[in-house]
Amino acid sequence: MTTTTMAMLDTYPKSINLDRAKLAAAIDALMACSEACTSCADACLSEDMVAELTKCIRTDLDCADICATTARVLSRHTGYDANISRTLLEACATACKACGDECARHADMHEHCRICADACRACEQACRDLLATIN
Amino acid sequence: MTTTTMAMLDTYPKSINLDRAKLAAAIDALMACSEACTSCADACLSEDMVAELTKCIRTDLDCADICATTARVLSRHTGYDANISRTLLEACATACKACGDECARHADMHEHCRICADACRACEQACRDLLATIN
Amino acid sequence: MTTTTMAMLDTYPKSINLDRAKLAAAIDALMACSEACTSCADACLSEDMVAELTKCIRTDLDCADICATTARVLSRHTGYDANISRTLLEACATACKACGDECARHADMHEHCRICADACRACEQACRDLLATIN
Amino acid sequence: MTTTTMAMLDTYPKSINLDRAKLAAAIDALMACSEACTSCADACLSEDMVAELTKCIRTDLDCADICATTARVLSRHTGYDANISRTLLEACATACKACGDECARHADMHEHCRICADACRACEQACRDLLATIN
Repeated sequence: MTTTTMAMLDTYPKSINLDRAKLAAAIDALMACSEACTSCADACLSEDMVAELTKCIRTDLDCADICATTARVLSRHTGYDANISRTLLEACATACKACGDECARHADMHEHCRICADACRACEQACRDLLATIN
Repeated sequence: MTTTTMAMLDTYPKSINLDRAKLAAAIDALMACSEACTSCADACLSEDMVAELTKCIRTDLDCADICATTARVLSRHTGYDANISRTLLEACATACKACGDECARHADMHEHCRICADACRACEQACRDLLATIN
Repeated sequence: MTTTTMAMLDTYPKSINLDRAKLAAAIDALMACSEACTSCADACLSEDMVAELTKCIRTDLDCADICATTARVLSRHTGYDANISRTLLEACATACKACGDECARHADMHEHCRICADACRACEQACRDLLATIN
Repeated sequence: MTTTTMAMLDTYPKSINLDRAKLAAAIDALMACSEACTSCADACLSEDMVAELTKCIRTDLDCADICATTARVLSRHTGYDANISRTLLEACATACKACGDECARHADMHEHCRICADACRACEQACRDLLATIN
């Protein structure tokens, strides 16, 4: 976990409606997953067998966008709206599941897909752990 | 509707799993809503009564991010995954509803909130119209 | 041009440091270009000859990200900083030039590349027109 | 530095045109800065004296967007274009300098601004270090 994420949570001037440890873990997992997916899409694009990786590239691009947006929404606490956090976390966990499954299919052949699948699994879990605390 | 969105849909080389008219309408509404929300957040920031508009600014920022990401995901058709589109459209409609409601509370005093509320309502409807077609 | 962009500029409560017509034209061109590039990357991904389009896909992804960010920065007027706008517009015009050139190389074979090249050219010009007004 | 960023660079299947250590340092600094700026904008929004922090919020939002986009562009190596990387890094260093300066003005009163200023300084330096290696 980066020290920055928790440090920023600790300096927020009002109360935060979510468990800070689970929140920081989710934000850090989302940023790591977004970066892994952006990199994996590009690595797939440079493989000789790119034609067999097009679904992987597309799912990577979706997952990168959704994780980046979810990290931003979770980093805001002013005027908190549980409905937005909950539905977005559900969409994000869905995208991480799909991307983790797709990358796992290529993990034996491509190390970048293996690392990306791990980042997706970890991020899906962090999203679900946080989701379980939101009423 | 911009001519570009539909033109790009029409040149996609494989089949598209969604109704093209509803899809183009949703993408255009999402882009217009994202732009309106980014602008409304900044206009609120320049109002003398900014202290009363902090929830509006926050919801605008969330809605801008979620709409921009949803527009991107909907613009991709390769390796289509209905679960990602469905859950993300649900999150997006939730954000548009929350942002439209919040902006509507300030619409009498701030013309930018009135225009932004309209963009959010239109976008929420376009998301729900498309969502109704996804199994 | 969408009516929303100019309407939001017209309701900004303080003065705007840039020519409103050129600013609105740039914001609209940036949104159209970002959408065209996201769509073109995905259309290229679904072409049978995707292996020959990898540079086009990569440049599309960069151009989509840079145009989307530039549209956001230009939509903010509070605490205007000419140095940020100027250097970002230069980066954006550079990306649009590169992407327009790359798409143009495939325009005869792929209609999506032709439309995207046009969107990039129009966006590069709108960026340079606005840039010429910033001291 | 996250282990993910360097691991993804190490599994890219073709050659990378930039110094890997400087590149990984820049990508990680960009992600940390983007997250710090998003959080600082939201923390400022929740301060009682938000009316005195509007320029800080705006610069935070710009810096968050520009850093996030720069991290993505730097994470792609396929079809590398030095002109895009160079001009974008210049824009990003400019935004980090402006945001670091603005946050530093409030660092004595607001701990989130102090942490964010540090993240901006570190990111500006990482961008300039990488920029110095690009011809």
